[in-house]
Amino acid sequence: MLTNPRAERVKAVRALGRRSSRERAGRFVAEGPQAVREVLAFRPETVADLYVDPQVSERRADILTLAEEHDVRVHECSPEVIAAMVDTGQPQGLVAVCRPVDVPLKDALGASPQLVVVLTNVRDPGNAGTVIRAADVAGADAVLVSDASVDVYNPKVVRSTVGSLWHLPIVRGVSVLELFDACRGSGLRLLAADGVGTQLLPDTDVRTPHAWVMGNEAWGLEPAVRDACDEVVRVPIYGHAESLNLAMAATLCLYTSAQVMRRDA
Amino acid sequence: MLTNPRAERVKAVRALGRRSSRERAGRFVAEGPQAVREVLAFRPETVADLYVDPQVSERRADILTLAEEHDVRVHECSPEVIAAMVDTGQPQGLVAVCRPVDVPLKDALGASPQLVVVLTNVRDPGNAGTVIRAADVAGADAVLVSDASVDVYNPKVVRSTVGSLWHLPIVRGVSVLELFDACRGSGLRLLAADGVGTQLLPDTDVRTPHAWVMGNEAWGLEPAVRDACDEVVRVPIYGHAESLNLAMAATLCLYTSAQVMRRDA
Repeated sequence: MLTNPRAERVKAVRALGRRSSRERAGRFVAEGPQAVREVLAFRPETVADLYVDPQVSERRADILTLAEEHDVRVHECSPEVIAAMVDTGQPQGLVAVCRPVDVPLKDALGASPQLVVVLTNVRDPGNAGTVIRAADVAGADAVLVSDASVDVYNPKVVRSTVGSLWHLPIVRGVSVLELFDACRGSGLRLLAADGVGTQLLPDTDVRTPHAWVMGNEAWGLEPAVRDACDEVVRVPIYGHAESLNLAMAATLCLYTSAQVMRRDA
Repeated sequence: MLTNPRAERVKAVRALGRRSSRERAGRFVAEGPQAVREVLAFRPETVADLYVDPQVSERRADILTLAEEHDVRVHECSPEVIAAMVDTGQPQGLVAVCRPVDVPLKDALGASPQLVVVLTNVRDPGNAGTVIRAADVAGADAVLVSDASVDVYNPKVVRSTVGSLWHLPIVRGVSVLELFDACRGSGLRLLAADGVGTQLLPDTDVRTPHAWVMGNEAWGLEPAVRDACDEVVRVPIYGHAESLNLAMAATLCLYTSAQVMRRDA
């Protein structure tokens, strides 16, 4: 039982809240029952260590059973140790230290991708995580995150994906141009989602393979990136709102694609 | 020029971060250029006082012009005073103290409402605000917030509506049963949005007037509330995600309704 919140091991886990420490260690943190269950269910081989508060794990036997089945190293900790490991106001008694799950670009796109999302210059962790979740909801083939975006292993991104981080291939650290080349090479049309577009979402052909390209939450897509896309698509607004936020726009675009593709399949 | 962050007047504005103070004073706070511009553009008569950091207002002449046009009382303040008024990490130099804008239920529904959203037991301010924004994007007729939900004048709700709070009628503090009666009386079908529904969103008739009923972000709709609705609708998930968050679900449901209603109009 780990009881010292100031132990080196505890500090090392907490340090994973910083990008530099994550990159040095090649590890990141998933916390709380939902995220921990998803990583154990979908990618158990990537869990290096699981830290549990026995009071919490008692109530979540499903999680401990999964960890046992997959020979994950489980360490019991006091609530104070768990709280010292994570940078959240409400520690939830379960912390998994995980290995990265991102894949090379060519593996993510596979033989014939149908629906993909490209994130460029996305900085807000909550928005980035929700877009990954939206891609998962839509059954997208992959999420491609450009090198100028927030780190997908940022604890706030991980939390807001609610497990989707482990459900579909994620690519990171690749330039937008390289992502675009690969998408085109795989037969994907590039659809920029941007409020300046003149083409409307309901008038857009989403029956054939395509990638949705989403930009920064505050200022949208860079003009050069937008111009490199095949079409610039706007989500029509029916009321007085000036815009949608990134997560709403991504949800609507990806979901529209999924529904049309499934209906016509 | 107000320069004392400890002045009574400054403390009184800061106190509006608490629900009890808002209800006692009959005032709430809108902060930042986007929210302040929207309240001045749509409901200027509800602005009691506008506090501005001259360095910020210089760059936002449009906002000062609007305030002048509508005879709003403008007070110049030091950045420290603005920071002391709001409970945000990044004060943005503009704070409007506003009068409530909610309306009686019968006024909100008008003669023949087409599309309405009912929020019940919604507790998370960010989710509630985004649902109000989604209703605005969809051109909904009104947002009806049950008495067991978060206060729509909570600063975090106000911020996440990004101005939509002033774009469409909002009702608050009314019980779910009363809201349902009024909706039915106005010819609206009640569609519960809930993951337990067997009817799927794409199979749902959204051509005739209806209200979307959304529940708590964690546990959904109470069974009794769900049973009181005419249909229980689920948003189909195509990937491995277990659920959508409230804001995503509301965005998809409301937007689907808007698109179908406009197309068929």
